[in-house]
Amino acid sequence: MNHWYSLMAEYGMALDEDRLEDWVELFDEQCDYRVVTRENVEQGLPNVLMWCDNKNMLRDRVESYREVNEYNLHYDRHVIGPPKILQQDGVSARIEANYVVLQTDQGGNSKVFSTGAYHALLVLDDGRMRIRDNVVVVDTFCVQTLIATPI
Amino acid sequence: MNHWYSLMAEYGMALDEDRLEDWVELFDEQCDYRVVTRENVEQGLPNVLMWCDNKNMLRDRVESYREVNEYNLHYDRHVIGPPKILQQDGVSARIEANYVVLQTDQGGNSKVFSTGAYHALLVLDDGRMRIRDNVVVVDTFCVQTLIATPI
Amino acid sequence: MNHWYSLMAEYGMALDEDRLEDWVELFDEQCDYRVVTRENVEQGLPNVLMWCDNKNMLRDRVESYREVNEYNLHYDRHVIGPPKILQQDGVSARIEANYVVLQTDQGGNSKVFSTGAYHALLVLDDGRMRIRDNVVVVDTFCVQTLIATPI
Repeated sequence: MNHWYSLMAEYGMALDEDRLEDWVELFDEQCDYRVVTRENVEQGLPNVLMWCDNKNMLRDRVESYREVNEYNLHYDRHVIGPPKILQQDGVSARIEANYVVLQTDQGGNSKVFSTGAYHALLVLDDGRMRIRDNVVVVDTFCVQTLIATPI
Repeated sequence: MNHWYSLMAEYGMALDEDRLEDWVELFDEQCDYRVVTRENVEQGLPNVLMWCDNKNMLRDRVESYREVNEYNLHYDRHVIGPPKILQQDGVSARIEANYVVLQTDQGGNSKVFSTGAYHALLVLDDGRMRIRDNVVVVDTFCVQTLIATPI
Repeated sequence: MNHWYSLMAEYGMALDEDRLEDWVELFDEQCDYRVVTRENVEQGLPNVLMWCDNKNMLRDRVESYREVNEYNLHYDRHVIGPPKILQQDGVSARIEANYVVLQTDQGGNSKVFSTGAYHALLVLDDGRMRIRDNVVVVDTFCVQTLIATPI
């Protein structure tokens, strides 16, 4: 499991560079992707902001996003911290990693857009590491667009 | 010394998730933890914002913090950069790593709370990596709470 | 290519700690360093904010910077994300890594100063890893000082 960092980096960069189709390809066929608020997690509430429980749902999601969003009015930039390894064997790894997404507007000003953590299960599939599960726990919850775009 | 990243990640996450007792357990029995401002370091001044020179002092510190702070009114999130290896052998490593702590208030807004660097000595103790020393050099010094909570 | 993280960390810390001469030494003799805006990259425009196509130009740049800047009025802090490995063999690696630079003013307040990505070619030279090329793609473009200091 050497290249966790390359996978994590590509995860952020595919989103930052609006390569959402590439981002979907980082997931396993039987994947589970969900975005939850930290508040809900800590209070044991079941609400989710986004939930796709297989890869076709992710594909549909990206496709419908493409239909309604023609222009990107800002730049995103993910900076992801080192992974905490919860469990690891030769074919899978359960990790957690903190992230911050910075956003730059059309005036060229950058600010903190979202902070949170990824809780992910990575698996080796035909020699390539893919994401089986990713639960994104977001701290920032006053952002409208969180509901629209993956993070 | 493979799992520096997992240790660094857990360091930040234990603080972020208010698991201060877990955070203390990352240190060696004979540890030294101190928080200093970058300004003081550069001017050669001896002032420290926080100083615990063994693990029992860290335990006391966390215990007294628990007594006065019942509620967490914000969320912290550490994002830590890659480590610079200053010295390394089979049983110890001296590293430096930059960090940023983002804080999210009750309205769900995130902002930069603190930036700085960890100057740490990591040691292998019974096959497990622990923190012998950590000097936290903080850039941000207008934050009251810096004096209260570890970083 | 084990110590990419140490090189990346030192890259940021040398800039943060105003050790610009050390920063230059991270580059190979036949290096290429340039800073471009993300906007220009995406529109295929050739403009660059800074360009040095060999190590002597970098040395000159730092020297002339030293002549006009006597005092550092703020602190910078680079936090760099994990590298995406585009190509790798025993002697070189092409990587991309996102970064955020936080800046702290004289009042002790920290804010986001610049975000972007490094697109770098690293090479092994006499057993030591050095930077052959680095194209810094900056998202933030309303910052005057970007043109003056390396990033």
